[in-house]
Amino acid sequence: MNIVILGGGAAGATAAQFARKEDRKAEITVFEASEYPQYSRCGLPYALSGAIPEFESLIEFSAEWFKRNKIDLRLSTEVSKVEPDTNTISFSGLDGDGKLQYDSLIFATGARPSIPGIKGIAEGDAKKKGVFVFRGMDDAKALSEWCGEKNRKAVIVGAGLVGLEVAEALHIMGHEVAVVEFLDSILPGMIDPDTAAPLLEKMSSLGISARTRALVEEILGDGSVAEAVVKDRDTGTEERIEYDTVIQENGQKPSTSLAKDAGCALGRHGHIRVDERCESSVPGIYAVGDCAEYVDFVTGAESPSGMGTTAVKMGEVAGINAAGGSFALPRGFLNSRVSRLFGLEISAVGPISSSLTEAGIAQVQARVKGSTLPVYYPGGKDIMVKLTASKEDGKLLACQIVGEEGAGLRVNLAAAMILAGFTARDLALFETTYAPPVAPTVDVLATAAEAIMIKLRRSGKSG
Amino acid sequence: MNIVILGGGAAGATAAQFARKEDRKAEITVFEASEYPQYSRCGLPYALSGAIPEFESLIEFSAEWFKRNKIDLRLSTEVSKVEPDTNTISFSGLDGDGKLQYDSLIFATGARPSIPGIKGIAEGDAKKKGVFVFRGMDDAKALSEWCGEKNRKAVIVGAGLVGLEVAEALHIMGHEVAVVEFLDSILPGMIDPDTAAPLLEKMSSLGISARTRALVEEILGDGSVAEAVVKDRDTGTEERIEYDTVIQENGQKPSTSLAKDAGCALGRHGHIRVDERCESSVPGIYAVGDCAEYVDFVTGAESPSGMGTTAVKMGEVAGINAAGGSFALPRGFLNSRVSRLFGLEISAVGPISSSLTEAGIAQVQARVKGSTLPVYYPGGKDIMVKLTASKEDGKLLACQIVGEEGAGLRVNLAAAMILAGFTARDLALFETTYAPPVAPTVDVLATAAEAIMIKLRRSGKSG
Repeated sequence: MNIVILGGGAAGATAAQFARKEDRKAEITVFEASEYPQYSRCGLPYALSGAIPEFESLIEFSAEWFKRNKIDLRLSTEVSKVEPDTNTISFSGLDGDGKLQYDSLIFATGARPSIPGIKGIAEGDAKKKGVFVFRGMDDAKALSEWCGEKNRKAVIVGAGLVGLEVAEALHIMGHEVAVVEFLDSILPGMIDPDTAAPLLEKMSSLGISARTRALVEEILGDGSVAEAVVKDRDTGTEERIEYDTVIQENGQKPSTSLAKDAGCALGRHGHIRVDERCESSVPGIYAVGDCAEYVDFVTGAESPSGMGTTAVKMGEVAGINAAGGSFALPRGFLNSRVSRLFGLEISAVGPISSSLTEAGIAQVQARVKGSTLPVYYPGGKDIMVKLTASKEDGKLLACQIVGEEGAGLRVNLAAAMILAGFTARDLALFETTYAPPVAPTVDVLATAAEAIMIKLRRSGKSG
Repeated sequence: MNIVILGGGAAGATAAQFARKEDRKAEITVFEASEYPQYSRCGLPYALSGAIPEFESLIEFSAEWFKRNKIDLRLSTEVSKVEPDTNTISFSGLDGDGKLQYDSLIFATGARPSIPGIKGIAEGDAKKKGVFVFRGMDDAKALSEWCGEKNRKAVIVGAGLVGLEVAEALHIMGHEVAVVEFLDSILPGMIDPDTAAPLLEKMSSLGISARTRALVEEILGDGSVAEAVVKDRDTGTEERIEYDTVIQENGQKPSTSLAKDAGCALGRHGHIRVDERCESSVPGIYAVGDCAEYVDFVTGAESPSGMGTTAVKMGEVAGINAAGGSFALPRGFLNSRVSRLFGLEISAVGPISSSLTEAGIAQVQARVKGSTLPVYYPGGKDIMVKLTASKEDGKLLACQIVGEEGAGLRVNLAAAMILAGFTARDLALFETTYAPPVAPTVDVLATAAEAIMIKLRRSGKSG
């Protein structure tokens, strides 16, 4: 059995790991275009800020690990062609060119930053000094070096998860930070605007400017960034603001050209389309992580994830299946997500509200505030839950939580209940662990479920 | 609609609350034998230690709350008879005797300490000075007063949850503490001996003696406790140890005499037997909390809980059903439990191993150690998971977790999966929220699930 994996990031390395666990004897080869063995891209903002002391400590699957597991890791090697007719790939690397046969192939080719052209961001072919993206190790190291030179005044274009994590890192490092987001709210794909409100407040209290419904129209400066023209999308007014650093964080484009040429169908967002076993439209070819679109459990829609969580789980599923495992059918992908930003843990599972609407699903929502501890026990932290259930049958669809702690673990509980088809009633009557120094008798999740039941009953439905 | 609730503790007050939510017009009367409106019994050890500054802050449902919700709370009132033939109860209180009709009745009569006779613990009819139990507010206040007098040397007989919580409180207050447990391990009904091991280590490092398979055979001293004779059950050796305080924490006996007289069937442990709607064998009569036995979801066995969590959930269910609600059928009771002891969070759901064996359920277990954060991110805490699945079909049955934090919330996830009938495979392929400062890509629960799958495959079953 020959298993070939294109891409050695989190998704690819995890696929290799699980293929190896499944089949001790398979030949497994991982092709990675960069010079790095797998490292945690999610960890880069924390290596930038210094929370993680060394960039190198982000390496999780080292070259040594690949050797120990008898997985052939080819670094700095580009794959130029995948031919499903002959089950062959062509590659060229440091040791020259070659071809390799495969029985199963896994695309884990990831994505590259999506960089909209901003006027004045480059001079000729060269980016102005002070312009950065933040995707890979080299991007992070370059920004780190630049920020080590002196105190910077940075504008981050795009308030997605990575954008805000970089904003936090720069803020911790003592730089001045502003964020500009084209859409209505920060973290637009991750949480609804009302869930983002406490985070916006927190950022404002820390002196971090966050403009939404705005864009950077032009970068001014001679060779280096000196100013940015920020435009308000509603009023059309433009403002020139002094910055010396621009970080473009407008999301990513999946790397799919090889897959497309190999005949793999793409999904509605242009990523490789896969089924729940993570197999593409071409039998024997799988796709995982940022280059793929998973089938969202709640809406059934093809959805790009972009999250490490989903990449790792897809890697597990594809690795097992590519090695001939029969059992790797997950209950479903939900795109569970979490981050810690400016002292707040922000977590969510299931589609954001607008995606549910787009999918034609009628929703009932409840937003409640609770505490992580009983009222009488000192030290409880505020925690805010937005829970969404189906108006039709009360089934749980999505959950978004913000608090100082415990958001991510509570979202995991909501996720399991969504996969199980549990209703708001099931959650309201669910025993959560309770002890005065640990948690209240009625968890905030159950309170939210009760609020949903009341709304459902008012609308004549039982929860 | 007349709803009568006997007992105003957590279970009774919650039943009243949810009956009121269900029916805005019902007459609801709560009879409570003590002088206290509902307070958190679980909070007493923390008021003792000083973590909660005042005993009075433990009152959650105040007399004021009952008034506001138009619930008639009769404190210091004993109910002497329940007659289902005529739907009548007889009571006597501060304002004299009376009778009351009911449509629904809820037993929330709780339990009283089970106090095995220890030789020398009393002189004549009076307990020796220095002998305590720890169930209600008055017990806790008496112990608090005694411990305020001088530094004590206390032995706690019974290493259940309350026993250890009191041991921790006394330790924090600076007293010397020893624990003696008759059974094989500490927290015997809550967790398996191997799960208790890290806690035993921690206690030992703090200088708290914990003897298992031992008993206090005799209390010596003239009018006051001066020494205890501690007997090793294996060797039979006896040791005289100086103590001035004995706290008996041997569990509890359910208060069921009224229910028995009213014709309610008792369960195999002598508590009132109820169905999943919390209704007893007598139609219209419900029972909740420490006086009742819930039907365990995993084994189907009648089981006393003794936990506030279950009491509150049973209260919700019975309250709604007693008020005529049709929908209060929970997915099942699992007896989820947690505490924080000596800096460790200890949590469990589902039967302990010996109860599963007793129920004839073949188990596969995995014990794994993980961290709350990715290896590369500083500050992760060790966390130990013992996961149990059915050897037959891989379905999750039980989970026990010990760590500095995050045990209880992880157990909630396991609990939802048990109720959903999820297998070890479902958990292994489940996306848990991940971000470097919050959680690792693969949660320790998923690692435990993988370990179970490997064991199942070795034994020829698929997980």
